[in-house]
Amino acid sequence: MPEKISEGKTKIIYKTPDKDEVLIEFKDDITALDGEKHDILPGKGEINATISAKLFEELERGDVPTHFISLDPSKPVMRAKRLEMIPIEVVCRNLAAGHFLQRFPMFTKGEKLRMPIVEFFLKNDELHDPMLVEDHLPLLALASGEEVQKMKEITRRVNAVLSDFFQKIELTLVDFKIEFGRDSAGELMVGDELNCDSMRLWEIDTGEAFDKDVYRKGGSLDQVKDIYVKSLRRIVG
Amino acid sequence: MPEKISEGKTKIIYKTPDKDEVLIEFKDDITALDGEKHDILPGKGEINATISAKLFEELERGDVPTHFISLDPSKPVMRAKRLEMIPIEVVCRNLAAGHFLQRFPMFTKGEKLRMPIVEFFLKNDELHDPMLVEDHLPLLALASGEEVQKMKEITRRVNAVLSDFFQKIELTLVDFKIEFGRDSAGELMVGDELNCDSMRLWEIDTGEAFDKDVYRKGGSLDQVKDIYVKSLRRIVG
Repeated sequence: MPEKISEGKTKIIYKTPDKDEVLIEFKDDITALDGEKHDILPGKGEINATISAKLFEELERGDVPTHFISLDPSKPVMRAKRLEMIPIEVVCRNLAAGHFLQRFPMFTKGEKLRMPIVEFFLKNDELHDPMLVEDHLPLLALASGEEVQKMKEITRRVNAVLSDFFQKIELTLVDFKIEFGRDSAGELMVGDELNCDSMRLWEIDTGEAFDKDVYRKGGSLDQVKDIYVKSLRRIVG
Repeated sequence: MPEKISEGKTKIIYKTPDKDEVLIEFKDDITALDGEKHDILPGKGEINATISAKLFEELERGDVPTHFISLDPSKPVMRAKRLEMIPIEVVCRNLAAGHFLQRFPMFTKGEKLRMPIVEFFLKNDELHDPMLVEDHLPLLALASGEEVQKMKEITRRVNAVLSDFFQKIELTLVDFKIEFGRDSAGELMVGDELNCDSMRLWEIDTGEAFDKDVYRKGGSLDQVKDIYVKSLRRIVG
């Protein structure tokens, strides 16, 4: 493999001969609780790369700017535009679940929110990813006020495109997390990944979770693997 | 006194013959830590009513819409427009201090923020006043998206007017909390109070706190009273 640019909990970014592109290798590592819980799930990297590629293709079709170029068919590797990433997580929620419920217990689990909502969190395990109000982003030199509004708009668009896609395959998009970056021209676009690690998907009929919650909630690695394989089949076909 | 409308930790709201007006009595109670710390500080109600009236007058002069009508000179009572209050606290910060520093320890105490920032918190002692992103306000039916923007604009205006006022009397407005309500015509305006309970004020030369932090940090009631009297003299003259 070529030279590493960086390595995170679940992905490695490599240089390519084209300085505006990168290769993203999806690792078999699975983590939760700010990295406190950690396992290896053989085959997970390939599943996540494949699902991410499929969902980025859907976004591109829906006119959402993303870093996606292509999936390398032989390995858990995606070719993408090289971005300067913004170290925040942008979360969009359609139904009440997870961390949101702890903060707002006046909602019940699975309650449909009257509107999709967008939340910002600083990526910082030590501070446990504190939530940010819009003013914090320019304050922390993360993004301009204009970029904050653009990220909200793009996030709502991602939500509309993906909710529609998942509904057709009998899944509800409960919530998801995306990350943004800027390309060499300073253009804002969706980077990182889009798969069962970064969204909650519930089967419309049964309510069954098709995502990482099975791992967060202490399911065996076999159970977790089953869910990832089921999700791959449902999403990619 | 006339009929009570409501009673909070530090104020009582009374009806008046005019249904669009109320009387607000400032109590001598002083509280902190979501109401866990509580004392009586004789004379505090009158000081806070007097400072509030003075600061609301400054805001009115600065074209900020507020509920203030007049101060009743004989008692710790303020006459104000009757508002339907929005149960949120809107915080504006110029320097890093207090709760902000716990969330963002990359700032140092007293560090000047590159821009004044506005934060929203839900008034809910049980949930420890969780921070809200802008989308949470319409979600929780607290305010429309348009009202959120209007509250941010008004808050920045309050900050400009008060920062200017305090600078002239050698005090730095570190941060403050305001609350908003709607009058009978649905007009958004600043309600509640404005005094040493709701802002951090540091003397420019010495850095001495002219506010409730002395109480939060365990100062004796005599020390706290001294600070409130000093603040009254400095602010009202």
